[in-house]
Amino acid sequence: MRHLLSIADLGADGIEEILRLTDSFVEVSARNIPKVPVLRGKTVVSLFYEDSTRTRLSFEAAAKRLSADTMTFSVGTSSVKKGESVRDTLQTIEAMGVDAIVVRHGSAGVPVQVARWGTSAVINAGDGWHEHPTQALLDCYTIRQRLGSLAGRSIAIVGDIKHSRVARSDVLAFTALGAEVTLVAPPTLLPPSLDGWPVKVSHDLDAVLPTTDVAYLLRMQQERMTEALVPSLREYSTCYGMTSARADRLADTSLIMHPGPMNRGVEIAAEVADRPNATVVDQVRNGVPVRMAVLFLLLGSGSTLYDPVPDPATPDDETEHDEHGSAGA
Amino acid sequence: MRHLLSIADLGADGIEEILRLTDSFVEVSARNIPKVPVLRGKTVVSLFYEDSTRTRLSFEAAAKRLSADTMTFSVGTSSVKKGESVRDTLQTIEAMGVDAIVVRHGSAGVPVQVARWGTSAVINAGDGWHEHPTQALLDCYTIRQRLGSLAGRSIAIVGDIKHSRVARSDVLAFTALGAEVTLVAPPTLLPPSLDGWPVKVSHDLDAVLPTTDVAYLLRMQQERMTEALVPSLREYSTCYGMTSARADRLADTSLIMHPGPMNRGVEIAAEVADRPNATVVDQVRNGVPVRMAVLFLLLGSGSTLYDPVPDPATPDDETEHDEHGSAGA
Amino acid sequence: MRHLLSIADLGADGIEEILRLTDSFVEVSARNIPKVPVLRGKTVVSLFYEDSTRTRLSFEAAAKRLSADTMTFSVGTSSVKKGESVRDTLQTIEAMGVDAIVVRHGSAGVPVQVARWGTSAVINAGDGWHEHPTQALLDCYTIRQRLGSLAGRSIAIVGDIKHSRVARSDVLAFTALGAEVTLVAPPTLLPPSLDGWPVKVSHDLDAVLPTTDVAYLLRMQQERMTEALVPSLREYSTCYGMTSARADRLADTSLIMHPGPMNRGVEIAAEVADRPNATVVDQVRNGVPVRMAVLFLLLGSGSTLYDPVPDPATPDDETEHDEHGSAGA
Repeated sequence: MRHLLSIADLGADGIEEILRLTDSFVEVSARNIPKVPVLRGKTVVSLFYEDSTRTRLSFEAAAKRLSADTMTFSVGTSSVKKGESVRDTLQTIEAMGVDAIVVRHGSAGVPVQVARWGTSAVINAGDGWHEHPTQALLDCYTIRQRLGSLAGRSIAIVGDIKHSRVARSDVLAFTALGAEVTLVAPPTLLPPSLDGWPVKVSHDLDAVLPTTDVAYLLRMQQERMTEALVPSLREYSTCYGMTSARADRLADTSLIMHPGPMNRGVEIAAEVADRPNATVVDQVRNGVPVRMAVLFLLLGSGSTLYDPVPDPATPDDETEHDEHGSAGA
Repeated sequence: MRHLLSIADLGADGIEEILRLTDSFVEVSARNIPKVPVLRGKTVVSLFYEDSTRTRLSFEAAAKRLSADTMTFSVGTSSVKKGESVRDTLQTIEAMGVDAIVVRHGSAGVPVQVARWGTSAVINAGDGWHEHPTQALLDCYTIRQRLGSLAGRSIAIVGDIKHSRVARSDVLAFTALGAEVTLVAPPTLLPPSLDGWPVKVSHDLDAVLPTTDVAYLLRMQQERMTEALVPSLREYSTCYGMTSARADRLADTSLIMHPGPMNRGVEIAAEVADRPNATVVDQVRNGVPVRMAVLFLLLGSGSTLYDPVPDPATPDDETEHDEHGSAGA
Repeated sequence: MRHLLSIADLGADGIEEILRLTDSFVEVSARNIPKVPVLRGKTVVSLFYEDSTRTRLSFEAAAKRLSADTMTFSVGTSSVKKGESVRDTLQTIEAMGVDAIVVRHGSAGVPVQVARWGTSAVINAGDGWHEHPTQALLDCYTIRQRLGSLAGRSIAIVGDIKHSRVARSDVLAFTALGAEVTLVAPPTLLPPSLDGWPVKVSHDLDAVLPTTDVAYLLRMQQERMTEALVPSLREYSTCYGMTSARADRLADTSLIMHPGPMNRGVEIAAEVADRPNATVVDQVRNGVPVRMAVLFLLLGSGSTLYDPVPDPATPDDETEHDEHGSAGA
């Protein structure tokens, strides 16, 4: 594994490997000093052509816990505004000495191009309507944490499937791990063709709910209304929102998921987002160790046979101030 | 002490404790390598809903000298622009693994809400017209450094009291430490009610000057003129500015203070700001160790009985490159 | 050497010293863990009054490889917008505890003023149309790396000389090291007077090419067209662009240089920029060790007699995870 561009490249085995490795980094994150020196001297650059503080900070937190250095190449203030091509920007960044590039871009396929042109490890942090693989990985980890396994689970992905890279990555990951996925949306918010998608489709959320183990709600963007894809946010909410009444009809063990940021009152009722079976905060929390696992796989020893997480009781200059470390010594 | 939200919560004892601890960090800041590893592995996030490079960098410098990691969640480029609530943003940040949140917001009370909703230590870095407690602490430290003590000192706070969080925090801190405070401003720049404020009020700066130990000048904002609260900046300057003539009438030992950034020529004459008894630069300098003390109290051992600043001569991987360290070994 | 403000201050000896020191840091940059602890505890601040992500990141990467802390004081979000003077901003930054300030400003002479007013080491990262000394140093290093020496080489600097700080610094550095420089530009893009410049001038790129060892192309800015200094970018490209035909007429060993970001298709044909004798990426790559050398000279031991780069085989807590280190132990 040299890059993480698409869930499709990973297959079930690749996903499983990352989720297993994530367990180790969840343990690291719970330590008093949640850092390991495994990527010391490595540099991770965020190359974000679209703003996303949440995703960028999650990757930066992951890189820092692995002791990597981080740099941000944000487009708003860069030579990209002067018309520099993605390829020239890439060459510039790589020439400064970089090990991994985390790319977000408004156009599908840019991370693949970056991986082809460059020499660094590339992580797709969202490209157009195409994919957002680390989001799907943290979603899988969250479901597994709550439900034990995805195999045989019924997952409904609800909302604006058409414009959602999260939906594409999730469909690939959930089905790879054996879940059954139903897309629930009005026809205007579905892709023009679903040929080859291993999913069922429904336009009726209420019909789907009783047999759903996971209701995954997508963010409804204001723009869709001005584009006349939905008559109004209120009407969208009435037909496809996770209202309190709908949430009541879910089984207690069924999960309500959302990639954030939420529009409380639109795709999810304000109080539903705070119910114990809503996992929004868990998803964010799991994002950091999932991204640590991805960065470690791409930049670390390259083999999970090597223990990425030295026992904190082992003498080590990086952990000697760790209370657990001194307790064990 | 779990948070620093208001000077009112500290009382005289709390202020004294922070000022005492600041002495240690002033010593650290003077070292060849001005760093101590006391907060290694901790993460401090700046959550700034208003721009303030000065305050943000001062907190970041403080966090870095304590070996904490820092992250900035600035509103301009974040999901807040997409309409996310403060509470949801807070949950997202905390889920990423954060120990302290430094909050600046245009509305009074937001830091208190953040402290109530979240699990991290919260530091108020300015909320609306309410409070800016670390500014007051560094002001107290600066006065004590120059004058020995605040007890019995006459302090005049001059200018736009009404819209100033600095004034509110300073009044609380200065009076807690025994100073007598006089607010000097035109009626339009005073709060509608001063009931319960332990202060005197004057509209005549010249009458107050001869008995003043500290003249604390507030920044005069351009907007106040368009709001017709003052006829013109020139007229404000004539009546309430620290002109050269007024500065000459102060005792040599009296201080001229300002929280910065200064409008030279408005609330303070250009040359006055550079006089030896003007403390603007001292205030900025003391800001870093004061914020180190606050961060250490909130995130460190939790007790000042523990020596926060190991003797640099002690063998320690974090200080072994320190010249003093090798000299002492 | 207390500051780096201008190539003129360095002289041939100063340039040579920096280039020699750069060799050491090129070696460091090639290590598995490309970091040395020589500036640990030092703080380097970027004070950029003009956006330049490329230059800022290059300095930050250099500082981090020397284990210094970095902070950015960008003007867009700072008190400078509130009208604070450069001098007051400087005093604020220095009071926070800073060792070096990297200044970029739209007006010539600001870094000299900053050096005069302040107490930190100052590095000019570009001031108006005046100088950009680290660019010239990395250009010299790149030429020497490719051609062995600059002595006796013919270097053509092509394009908008008038508005180029790169051209000014390059002329000084190239001629100090014994090269012969020809400026090639239309009269509208030359400075009003070239008295005292140790250069030849030509308006005919084709006449100059056959005897040129290095063709240094400057970025052609869109604005020059609206200012009517050139009739159109297409016409500029026809007369002064490095087209494929012109590149073919250069000797194989002759270099094509550009400070970036390039306008492919304007001052340089798209395919020419990717030829083996085009050095754009080398220039960026060399920028980091050149800036490490400058920072080390200004903030390190102050003497190149001291070995800045400890042998990685030496036991050292900062390098013990380095593979070379453990191999040598």
